[in-house]
Amino acid sequence: MPKYSIGVDFGTLSGRAVLVNVATGEELADSVFDYPHGVMDETLPDGTRLGVDWALQHPQDYLDVFSHTIPGVLEKSGVSPADVIGVGIDFTACTVLPVKADGTPLCFLPKFAGNPNAYVKLWKHHAAQDKANALNETASSMGEEWLARYGGKISSEWAFPKLWQILDESPKVYEAMDAFVEAADWVIWQLTGKQTRNSCTAGYKAMWSKSEGYPSKAFFKALDPRMENVIEEKFSGPVTPLGGKAGELTEAAAKLTGLNPGTAVAVANVDAHVTVPAVKIDSAGKMLAIMGTSTCHMLISDKEVKVPGICGVVEDGILPGFFGYEAGQSCVGDHFAWFIDNCLPKEYFDAAEKEGVNIHKYLRSKAEKLKVGESGLLALDWWNGNRSVLVDVDLTGVMLGMTLQTKPEEIYRALIEATAYGTRKIIETFRENGVPVEEFYASGGISQKDPMTMQIYADVIGIPIKIAGSLQGPALGSAIFGAVAAGKQAGGYDSVMEAAQAMGKLRDEVYIPIAENVKAYDKLYAEYSILHDYFGRGANDVMKRLKELKKQVSRE
Amino acid sequence: MPKYSIGVDFGTLSGRAVLVNVATGEELADSVFDYPHGVMDETLPDGTRLGVDWALQHPQDYLDVFSHTIPGVLEKSGVSPADVIGVGIDFTACTVLPVKADGTPLCFLPKFAGNPNAYVKLWKHHAAQDKANALNETASSMGEEWLARYGGKISSEWAFPKLWQILDESPKVYEAMDAFVEAADWVIWQLTGKQTRNSCTAGYKAMWSKSEGYPSKAFFKALDPRMENVIEEKFSGPVTPLGGKAGELTEAAAKLTGLNPGTAVAVANVDAHVTVPAVKIDSAGKMLAIMGTSTCHMLISDKEVKVPGICGVVEDGILPGFFGYEAGQSCVGDHFAWFIDNCLPKEYFDAAEKEGVNIHKYLRSKAEKLKVGESGLLALDWWNGNRSVLVDVDLTGVMLGMTLQTKPEEIYRALIEATAYGTRKIIETFRENGVPVEEFYASGGISQKDPMTMQIYADVIGIPIKIAGSLQGPALGSAIFGAVAAGKQAGGYDSVMEAAQAMGKLRDEVYIPIAENVKAYDKLYAEYSILHDYFGRGANDVMKRLKELKKQVSRE
Repeated sequence: MPKYSIGVDFGTLSGRAVLVNVATGEELADSVFDYPHGVMDETLPDGTRLGVDWALQHPQDYLDVFSHTIPGVLEKSGVSPADVIGVGIDFTACTVLPVKADGTPLCFLPKFAGNPNAYVKLWKHHAAQDKANALNETASSMGEEWLARYGGKISSEWAFPKLWQILDESPKVYEAMDAFVEAADWVIWQLTGKQTRNSCTAGYKAMWSKSEGYPSKAFFKALDPRMENVIEEKFSGPVTPLGGKAGELTEAAAKLTGLNPGTAVAVANVDAHVTVPAVKIDSAGKMLAIMGTSTCHMLISDKEVKVPGICGVVEDGILPGFFGYEAGQSCVGDHFAWFIDNCLPKEYFDAAEKEGVNIHKYLRSKAEKLKVGESGLLALDWWNGNRSVLVDVDLTGVMLGMTLQTKPEEIYRALIEATAYGTRKIIETFRENGVPVEEFYASGGISQKDPMTMQIYADVIGIPIKIAGSLQGPALGSAIFGAVAAGKQAGGYDSVMEAAQAMGKLRDEVYIPIAENVKAYDKLYAEYSILHDYFGRGANDVMKRLKELKKQVSRE
Repeated sequence: MPKYSIGVDFGTLSGRAVLVNVATGEELADSVFDYPHGVMDETLPDGTRLGVDWALQHPQDYLDVFSHTIPGVLEKSGVSPADVIGVGIDFTACTVLPVKADGTPLCFLPKFAGNPNAYVKLWKHHAAQDKANALNETASSMGEEWLARYGGKISSEWAFPKLWQILDESPKVYEAMDAFVEAADWVIWQLTGKQTRNSCTAGYKAMWSKSEGYPSKAFFKALDPRMENVIEEKFSGPVTPLGGKAGELTEAAAKLTGLNPGTAVAVANVDAHVTVPAVKIDSAGKMLAIMGTSTCHMLISDKEVKVPGICGVVEDGILPGFFGYEAGQSCVGDHFAWFIDNCLPKEYFDAAEKEGVNIHKYLRSKAEKLKVGESGLLALDWWNGNRSVLVDVDLTGVMLGMTLQTKPEEIYRALIEATAYGTRKIIETFRENGVPVEEFYASGGISQKDPMTMQIYADVIGIPIKIAGSLQGPALGSAIFGAVAAGKQAGGYDSVMEAAQAMGKLRDEVYIPIAENVKAYDKLYAEYSILHDYFGRGANDVMKRLKELKKQVSRE
């Protein structure tokens, strides 16, 4: 009798369950449930208004995902709950909420239902930037060594700036919470009845490391005397390594999901990170790019090195037994969308409509005919700052080489190429710092839908690109972790690597670099690098000065 | 009884006559005639195919302008031919043709009617670029000092590259021609029956100077031994200063135009240069910008200085008694049109249509609300290379500072600002080299129709801008020269300065720099200058390398 595992992927607007054959990786059914409250960025359910840059969620939505999608995949596939040996989940991060000791979210309590700080702060809640700035300054001036693990900067999206905002704005919420937990860990808590903290979010988002733990009391005290004991008071519970079993399904959770009590539940994971085994990555030197509106780069390695400008390095942060590195580009699909929304002439829309194709496809049909270097254009892909390797939100976009003959499709292609150069810059930075990158994998919407872009990436980085075999990479990855949580004896696996080989999937086609294009892109990348360093490393800080002027003017 | 003068402006696609009251400058009538052959850039009238970058005209069209437009303005105004005391003309330049000793164009002869090299080579005929390159190399290696008068480079648009092309491709046409003349001078020849060569085109386009004459025989021999005696053989006739009388209307010309025989005819002029007195400029330190698809800058001065990167300095080249300097920006209105054609999203056209305004106006209504520096954008205005002061056709455009929030109107405004910075760079280069620029005048379409752009220019250059009072600046200028050719005794004037004061016109409104904008633009111009020098003066020749790669790729 075949055995099955269920992976549940909690995204920004919805949750998705996939039911997977543990032996083959075949995805038998999937089911999506949109969060009833979506992203709350203007008001709470009771009408309370939210400030600028706020982004909240309602934890009840996550429970509703379980109660809708798991019964959904069971029904669609006809698989018996008895044959489902494990459940895994992944979540956006850092998505965090304050809870009581029994796991009850503070926003479930009537006294806090009208307080925005009692709700889930979604990853893209950006209202704690001042806290992040202050945290970075303090860490820098105190010479905190852990800062180097995060490329020298903590993001406002991460746990401590968000927690500090609560303390500052709603001390009563802060006092009332017994724990500040990742939503990823909270949903696992709801399934198993006990709290765990996964090593991935703890490492990447909460400044924890396996060898050194959290930052010192002295550091937190320096931030705010009331935070001196924040770890004991709000971060209770041991950090649990990825690939482990968090517990088993409780009676209540069994009722909620339609699964059997006692079903193995994996330690929680993060959407990007969980995708790594879903593309069969099981050893060092292999990088995965998850390419969507922005791109996350995941790389596993045998050793820990401080690589300048990466988002983080965490032991056991991606696959157990390895150091997991994360890097990122803050503007990829968003970049192309901006171009189409703001720069594309009417006749292109008319022509696309006439041909009955979508505008991206129409543009690609023109851009893919261009030879490498034919447009004479070169761009710096900094429309949303630069995450890796410059870690500088104040950098802005550059387009160079325009003539009166320049066509929209040439600009479009130059933007795509610029993001590919950005990826190559990340790869080369890893290599220059002694972290090998030997293979390259891609998942996410762009990898599936845009062969031109993938070929450009292969030609720019000069490495063949393997493409994820599943459209639901994160959910498949979670199912892999679910099968590992169940263990070999139950019909699953004893290691993530083993499960990845059996259940991970790649498409047959591989994008192979075309030698003559690689040669031409080597030249263009050399030009990109000169401009990258000129504008990005202090030789000409024109972008910062323009932003400063812009701010001054806007204040007037 | 009032006296009148007629100015005829020969443009790229049509000719226009204006009849002007000599005492007041009042324009009583105008008349336009489109050239029947237009610009021939694909075939000759007999179907002979033309090469890439060719642009020819038919001289019969110019005669047709006289026979249509002069009777036209006489009829419209009701002025008697007896009261028309003078005629002046201006032409595009360098627009040149090979003729026989009696003035007959070679293309009028049946044996040459099928030979492209026998026709008028229009200013924008660009098929002699290799000749220009060779000429510049030879002049440079021989240390020819006159080269410095032209900013160090002769354009392929000018007379000798065009003549050399004829010699090279059609030696029989070269042999058969008795003179190679500017169309400007040729039409005057048709009116007066005798050949003149105006000092303006001789100086700016044929490497002549009042003090030194033409380049040496040794130089021309070095170009091509057959050209050793080119000046005696093909450039016969004395150079006649601007502001003089070329002759009087012949019987034949009187019949052609409907004017009286004996009417004074002015020495020919060039469209941009002739506009200077039309805005009342009559002394040193005053710059006129003629702003259209590209911009020409005219400046008169008491002294001759070698200013790097200007298009030319010619004694008596603009106004008699002064050194006339010309500089230029190769892409101004073209720049904004490129943006609208290639970069503007559909919804902007829809919105403009809904509001019933043209798209430039709609964009301006959004762009003019922006404060200086608010967009965070900065551009280099090199979409069509840089004419002054870098004299480099291989430079290309740059746009810097884009974010995902950047709107089309911000880019549009940044392009406009970039052309204003380019103008300031020209002004400052004159000043740095000891040629004062104290006042600034503008004519041309942009000056008349685009108050936002004019205010931006005033704020960027920090000088009030006076605007031409006539929509037909060149034709008015030509009428001024016509009145001077007639002389005071006939009811005209004895000097161009005197005529300019009486007949030149300015609008009442002046664009006054706004102090706070000037301050902000000073900062932005400083940033522009850094990038201008970085990309334009050799620190990073990325644009040239990209163009080289583009050429390589296109050849493959």
